[in-house]
Amino acid sequence: MEGVDYLADERKKAEFDVDEMKIIWAGSRHHFQLSDRISKLVANDPGFSKEGRTMLPRKELFKSTLRKAAYGWKRIIELRLTEEEATVLRRYVDEPAFTDLHWGMFIPAIKGQGTDEQQKKWLPLAQKMQLIGCYAQTELGHGSNVQGLETTATFDPQTDEFVIHSPTLTSSKWWPGGLGKVSTHAVVYARLITDGKDYGINGFIVQLRSLEDHKPLPGVTVGDIGMKFGNGAYNSMDNGVLRFDHVRIPRDQMLMRASQVTKEGKYVQSDVPRQLLYGTMVYVRQTIVADASLAMSRAVCIATRYSAVRRQFGSQNGGQETQVIDYKTQQNRLFPLLASAYAFRFVGEWLKWLYTDVTQRLQANDFSTLPEAHACTAGLKSLTTSATADGIEECRKLCGGHGYLCSSGLPELFAVYVPACTYEGDNVVLQLQVARFLMKTVSQLGTGKKPVGTTSYMGRIEYLMQCRSDVKQATEWMKPSAIVEAYEARAARMSVACAKRLSKFDNQEEGFAELAADLVEAAVAHCQLIVVSKFVEKLQQDIPGKGVKQQLEVLCGIYSLYLLHKHQGDFLGTGYITSKQASLANDQLRALYSKLRPNAISLVDAFNYTDHYLGSILGRYDGNVYPKLYEAAWKDPLNDSDVADGFHEYVRPLLKQQLRTARL
Amino acid sequence: MEGVDYLADERKKAEFDVDEMKIIWAGSRHHFQLSDRISKLVANDPGFSKEGRTMLPRKELFKSTLRKAAYGWKRIIELRLTEEEATVLRRYVDEPAFTDLHWGMFIPAIKGQGTDEQQKKWLPLAQKMQLIGCYAQTELGHGSNVQGLETTATFDPQTDEFVIHSPTLTSSKWWPGGLGKVSTHAVVYARLITDGKDYGINGFIVQLRSLEDHKPLPGVTVGDIGMKFGNGAYNSMDNGVLRFDHVRIPRDQMLMRASQVTKEGKYVQSDVPRQLLYGTMVYVRQTIVADASLAMSRAVCIATRYSAVRRQFGSQNGGQETQVIDYKTQQNRLFPLLASAYAFRFVGEWLKWLYTDVTQRLQANDFSTLPEAHACTAGLKSLTTSATADGIEECRKLCGGHGYLCSSGLPELFAVYVPACTYEGDNVVLQLQVARFLMKTVSQLGTGKKPVGTTSYMGRIEYLMQCRSDVKQATEWMKPSAIVEAYEARAARMSVACAKRLSKFDNQEEGFAELAADLVEAAVAHCQLIVVSKFVEKLQQDIPGKGVKQQLEVLCGIYSLYLLHKHQGDFLGTGYITSKQASLANDQLRALYSKLRPNAISLVDAFNYTDHYLGSILGRYDGNVYPKLYEAAWKDPLNDSDVADGFHEYVRPLLKQQLRTARL
Repeated sequence: MEGVDYLADERKKAEFDVDEMKIIWAGSRHHFQLSDRISKLVANDPGFSKEGRTMLPRKELFKSTLRKAAYGWKRIIELRLTEEEATVLRRYVDEPAFTDLHWGMFIPAIKGQGTDEQQKKWLPLAQKMQLIGCYAQTELGHGSNVQGLETTATFDPQTDEFVIHSPTLTSSKWWPGGLGKVSTHAVVYARLITDGKDYGINGFIVQLRSLEDHKPLPGVTVGDIGMKFGNGAYNSMDNGVLRFDHVRIPRDQMLMRASQVTKEGKYVQSDVPRQLLYGTMVYVRQTIVADASLAMSRAVCIATRYSAVRRQFGSQNGGQETQVIDYKTQQNRLFPLLASAYAFRFVGEWLKWLYTDVTQRLQANDFSTLPEAHACTAGLKSLTTSATADGIEECRKLCGGHGYLCSSGLPELFAVYVPACTYEGDNVVLQLQVARFLMKTVSQLGTGKKPVGTTSYMGRIEYLMQCRSDVKQATEWMKPSAIVEAYEARAARMSVACAKRLSKFDNQEEGFAELAADLVEAAVAHCQLIVVSKFVEKLQQDIPGKGVKQQLEVLCGIYSLYLLHKHQGDFLGTGYITSKQASLANDQLRALYSKLRPNAISLVDAFNYTDHYLGSILGRYDGNVYPKLYEAAWKDPLNDSDVADGFHEYVRPLLKQQLRTARL
Repeated sequence: MEGVDYLADERKKAEFDVDEMKIIWAGSRHHFQLSDRISKLVANDPGFSKEGRTMLPRKELFKSTLRKAAYGWKRIIELRLTEEEATVLRRYVDEPAFTDLHWGMFIPAIKGQGTDEQQKKWLPLAQKMQLIGCYAQTELGHGSNVQGLETTATFDPQTDEFVIHSPTLTSSKWWPGGLGKVSTHAVVYARLITDGKDYGINGFIVQLRSLEDHKPLPGVTVGDIGMKFGNGAYNSMDNGVLRFDHVRIPRDQMLMRASQVTKEGKYVQSDVPRQLLYGTMVYVRQTIVADASLAMSRAVCIATRYSAVRRQFGSQNGGQETQVIDYKTQQNRLFPLLASAYAFRFVGEWLKWLYTDVTQRLQANDFSTLPEAHACTAGLKSLTTSATADGIEECRKLCGGHGYLCSSGLPELFAVYVPACTYEGDNVVLQLQVARFLMKTVSQLGTGKKPVGTTSYMGRIEYLMQCRSDVKQATEWMKPSAIVEAYEARAARMSVACAKRLSKFDNQEEGFAELAADLVEAAVAHCQLIVVSKFVEKLQQDIPGKGVKQQLEVLCGIYSLYLLHKHQGDFLGTGYITSKQASLANDQLRALYSKLRPNAISLVDAFNYTDHYLGSILGRYDGNVYPKLYEAAWKDPLNDSDVADGFHEYVRPLLKQQLRTARL
């Protein structure tokens, strides 16, 4: 029935103030109100409907995305939304589009790498969308190894122009979003060649399409790279292929903040420190961590609500069956993901602070914390996106068979999310960077150079190498100091063990290559410590609202004890805990599941997601799942007619034993 | 360039006889020749082309599947293929279709549950496809809990008919493949009610559609349940919804092998032992394990070949970059999956033997091994399908960004595979069944009842509870006895630990529910032991062919040592190994990766898959990846025109600042 809340009983069980938790989740009252207002605005506007998206053929899907993008921009203008509000609106429209790259990569690239003059020329055009830009870096043959890009930009002093060229097939730009069918311009990354010398990779603003008829300009071959994983999902984006045949651009379209080429073709480094550019990377990765908590929380919200709706087995005397959320196996898979959503949210919030801190230091020419901040954001990007991708798929499985239907929303959420494990740094490559930083940190211990920020625990290395957990009963695992020390000891010992084994190699690089898998494990241990300790730090703040802090303590306990159990081998192997203590941790974990259980639905309600944003019948706020699933089925195109298209040609001849003469 | 083998150098490196390995993989020379011949026949027939499948809108996809099914049947008839050959042909056509259910579930259900008379009536019709059948068990509200199904079949002695009815919304049949748009008949599972009494679930043959115009019969509401995960994939299947409004069928359409209803409405159990029905479950799950090795090997074949083609980083002096397959991080993710493909193949082969053994015993009224065989197949179904689903996604990630393109074949392979984790028993529910069996086995130790089959190691429980690994150097981990004992000790100790903790509960069922997550871990440990020991047993056979056995030893070592590392916590926690021994195991694992490396390509060549079957540009036999990716991109419908459909309506007004008046 419409208007009935089938989860009302669940909501009554909550032992905390949900409204206060909503503010904690949003980060502040301001952010709560902002996203509450904008998400409802989007949800209530039929112009942004997602209905039937996963059923659309590619061309129709793409066309509808173009419409939504234009409509969104129109609303932004009509409602005079601020930049912050506009960004939130685009998030809740919830459909990958060329605008993501225009606002998220093209404009920031010009801001970060363009001179003041270039910014003055290009930014107003871009900000009014009088041109549409994308970010053309990745090539068919090169992704992770940016220094290996093959596109060339050769300076021709005769005409004061750069000649942009794709010398090989593998130099074709490949993947950039918004490139295939929409962008009129791109920041193209190419090898800067002047005076016969290769100065490495630089960015160039290149026009690709006519601003009149939108046709590709002479020398430009551009198109879409084809279907990607999933229904709907990233197929609304025109990830593109691009080749240049000696395309000429004026010299002043080289992005010249960090280096210039003079009229005479002389390459000049500017006095802007190159480190400044790393600031952008920290920024982008911090937003990716924030997105991880968003995606994880959406999946968890769907799976949690449906787990309360779904009943299976355990009926006694003809009564109702057991809600699947009451099964410990379900809790053991679901609740750690719920805890992860909160954990990632808080570490993401902290990363925002870190970015501000780094920026301020950079402006004061203090580069001392940059390597640590860089390693930390790289590692957290890797950790949170991998866990989120796996977590979404786990949530899908937790919904049983029905999770496999597009109407559950989970297939699309998974397909649209997984690229995050690859873009902006492949997750394994990133952990190797973290490991490299950790090995350097270990090697400098005792030289007087103090480890900073998230590696400062390494300063207590002697203690951490020999301490033992003093936990004697399960509940002691709830002491923040017990849990943080366990993670510190594990991370420190794994790093030191790697460093020791590395030191046995004559050639450090060879050693690093040989031990790469172990190094990745050490890096992951370090990153998990960061997430755990930022969660613990959050709990040391003043947290208002009845019961809110208690719930977060339960979540923090679940997050850290679940991971401790999962990586028991590390904790036992490094000798910090005994198997008895590991078993106590597991007992405590189970106890926490029981504590969380009555609050589960309210903890996902605290995300404050509209049904529009969730896009899932299984995750409906009102829990009215089955009638809506049934209703939705009939909308499939296959149900347009009782008898399927193709019956007469291909099924009837078979049933009537007339295949011999059938045209197949 | 066409006709060039870009992987020729890799193939030259092989240290074993690939042709002999192909026979090992296929199971026998007969099976090799059979699948070689049929797979090429399919690959070379344009009627079976998979080109563009992932781009088709649902209706077109479905229509093309109907065509292929009819064409396949036509070819089977024309070529006078045997049943065995026809099954292999359908496998290589590689597209889920109603025929899977007709041949794989409908016909077996009649064979297994129908009387001789019923078989005589229905099988010839089905085997000529004069009717098309499916298997309608799962309902909207009930999947795992078959006993909870709600559809009713009420006997009416007045007319000698059963009245089939869907009393609630949740009783709607939901999911059965082939049901939505094609099947004319179904075996419907419903609660048998006669004389006012509910006798539980039984199967009934029910006609759903007219054999003339294919329209649903009166009282039958039937349709498709809508889009599912992925492009192409299972969307070629008409998983259906079905409701009955008091539909009448003759009494003799109840499947009466195990029980009958007489004309007078009396319910009678036949003397056929109900255990016989379990034989079918063992059969079906054995085929699922075989399918797991197929799916895993396809994904691994793609990822391995592409890892040899792809180069990134590590170029020195302008030379070529490093093949990504040479990175230890890549090997550490890829090679264990390659080893798993072989491991699952061999355990699947053994399960075939087990099924034959069980069948022979059943025919001799020997039910003694049935519970063990049932637990074993349930556990292996769960273990192999979960590992394969995760493995395919890992292979996709191992292909970097390009793995996200449908043309890589991996998105479709993943989407089409994952339901295996849910159908024929949810994987977690199955492991709980295994755990239940293990707990029973442990409780009976010392009662004189000897554990049989795969649990026979439990007979040495006293030794296994106190023994310690005697491994002193890395290579000793290659001794079969060392590895098998490690897995036995771990599995035994985890089971015993669970049993001990269970015994502390007053109510065993409550204890079982509370400790469910630990019980699942114990069950998984037991199942991993089975896979490891069957691999080890395989190696004790006579294996012909130069170097073949050596390669399999490497794979067996990788499979077992990788899992040992992954589950280190269990091995350390139960005290069987020391952390030094764990570290030696890891050293040995790395050494095995280096041994495997030169043989990697040939080990996936041994699967003998055609490019048609693989359906992947990244996995092409000739390694000619980039030109073919580039070529394929242009086939996307978005590239039909230079300027995208929708540009004039939705992009131009935006660029020209004319949104105010645009119709959006």
